[in-house]
Amino acid sequence: MSEREIPGELAALRASIDNLDAALVYLLAERFRCTQQVGHLKAELGLAPSDPAREEEQLQRLRQLARESGLDPAFAEKVLAFIIAEVIRNHGIIAEAVSS
Amino acid sequence: MSEREIPGELAALRASIDNLDAALVYLLAERFRCTQQVGHLKAELGLAPSDPAREEEQLQRLRQLARESGLDPAFAEKVLAFIIAEVIRNHGIIAEAVSS
Repeated sequence: MSEREIPGELAALRASIDNLDAALVYLLAERFRCTQQVGHLKAELGLAPSDPAREEEQLQRLRQLARESGLDPAFAEKVLAFIIAEVIRNHGIIAEAVSS
Repeated sequence: MSEREIPGELAALRASIDNLDAALVYLLAERFRCTQQVGHLKAELGLAPSDPAREEEQLQRLRQLARESGLDPAFAEKVLAFIIAEVIRNHGIIAEAVSS
């Protein structure tokens, strides 16, 4: 089926998905603004980029939120783990820049 | 530094991050509700689970949104690729269930 033959129902769902993706991108951008500030604060205070106790709390809370919202908790966990890994990587870069 | 000695500024940033994460989880849950419907529709219409032209359009749009929002476009792309892979996997499962 070519682009021009997309059924109306599919096109409507795709428009909703596109809107949700825009919201997701802007929320992720705001989340990274916050974690950038956390990175600078941790570097200033000499705290480690990673905080396993905090990350465990976040995962527990996320599983609960996923259950409440109807999202697959295993998927939610994989997405958060992916985001946190990127954040920790950035914190490491900030710490290195501050200490050098 | 133990849990009790977390500076106020760090605690405030973490509270914002937790709020953003809750919003992200609920948006992701809604996105999956939409893609589940797309999966059923595609299975009914006999369309393939994956649609490379649509996915390419989504990636282009996402890169633009990432630039506008100040999010690293490469990171945005990696997150979307991760989500789309999960969606395609689910579409395949739905198609199999419908055809069996």
